[in-house]
Amino acid sequence: MPESNEAPTGRSRVKRYNWLARYDRETIDAVLDATPLAHVGCLIDGVPFVTPTFFWREGDRVYWHGHSAGRMFKVLEQQDICLTVSLLDGLVVARSAFNFNCNYRSVMLLGRAELIRDETVKAEKLRNFVNRLIPGEWERLRPMHDRELKVTAVASLAVSEASCKIRTGAPEDNDDDYAFPSWAGVVPVRYQVLPPEPDARNLPGIEMPKDILKFRIG
Amino acid sequence: MPESNEAPTGRSRVKRYNWLARYDRETIDAVLDATPLAHVGCLIDGVPFVTPTFFWREGDRVYWHGHSAGRMFKVLEQQDICLTVSLLDGLVVARSAFNFNCNYRSVMLLGRAELIRDETVKAEKLRNFVNRLIPGEWERLRPMHDRELKVTAVASLAVSEASCKIRTGAPEDNDDDYAFPSWAGVVPVRYQVLPPEPDARNLPGIEMPKDILKFRIG
Repeated sequence: MPESNEAPTGRSRVKRYNWLARYDRETIDAVLDATPLAHVGCLIDGVPFVTPTFFWREGDRVYWHGHSAGRMFKVLEQQDICLTVSLLDGLVVARSAFNFNCNYRSVMLLGRAELIRDETVKAEKLRNFVNRLIPGEWERLRPMHDRELKVTAVASLAVSEASCKIRTGAPEDNDDDYAFPSWAGVVPVRYQVLPPEPDARNLPGIEMPKDILKFRIG
Repeated sequence: MPESNEAPTGRSRVKRYNWLARYDRETIDAVLDATPLAHVGCLIDGVPFVTPTFFWREGDRVYWHGHSAGRMFKVLEQQDICLTVSLLDGLVVARSAFNFNCNYRSVMLLGRAELIRDETVKAEKLRNFVNRLIPGEWERLRPMHDRELKVTAVASLAVSEASCKIRTGAPEDNDDDYAFPSWAGVVPVRYQVLPPEPDARNLPGIEMPKDILKFRIG
């Protein structure tokens, strides 16, 4: 996985890394929708903290939440931040160390985030979040208390300044190296969702909603 | 996944989220060694960019590499940065939206990174990187060219200012909520390494080294 999310600048680089630097919205949305896990970069006390967080997309914006006392939410609106989503898809075993790589999908969003202050809108967003993870789950849960809503911060960021990079497929070795007698190939990696484990304290007779099985990642 | 990597401040919070904020080195090293994927936070042109990158640990330091022309490597040594490693282990389905959570392991490292300038040391580090992914692979590869080494930057950061958070186990609902008739449990998630796919351009008779099967993540 390369160090920079910049678009490729030269043809040789494009070839070597098999870049697909695609900025079309459909591709970006597909990556954003593939996982609930993002990493948010936010300057706190002069340090660019990287915080893992669940997030979700609704149309032209992404959202994430947390405790309103969290440091990130105190300073979020005073700076441009970065939200990065990345999915590892495989290890690319080349014939040289230089051409070792990985297959992956990644999106980087930049911009000024906003906190949602309207409690009704906040509840609606949280509902969308829960139901995105598991369809219809919000309606099955104990309804949210006002005090819970109050201490929950919901932030959002526009999908406008975005870059997307995707690498797929076989190793790309130097022409000369294809004659070198070293095995090359791809070791694919993906998320695996395992069978749900019911809580030991579930009420007798409670059945697992089939929608739980719809939770997907990757 | 919560928004902040701070240690828990109150007993109720500890209980509610089932925090294990552990800062002992053994635990931190175990998380760092579980995945090659990190996210580095680095201030570039005033924006806290979050860049996904492969990394590896050697003793008291972590390392990562990239093209020396990458923006990150130009400014890395002039600021404190953050390197975050996170592994998603499951979706925690509680009886209320407020207690929805995820099981995960995460480590956040802070500090001043250093670039390795000695080419011999750089090569040694890259060898360790490759052989950490696949034992003995470096020795099977076409030897590195000097010009390749020259354009490869290797950065390192001490595992000194580090925090680690791990959540495991069942949902932690409010006492009152255990009587609420909603299914609760955990949907485990993990990385799955699939069977290696040989490159179509492998030389005839080339066999896959068994060490390829030792690549693990998670």
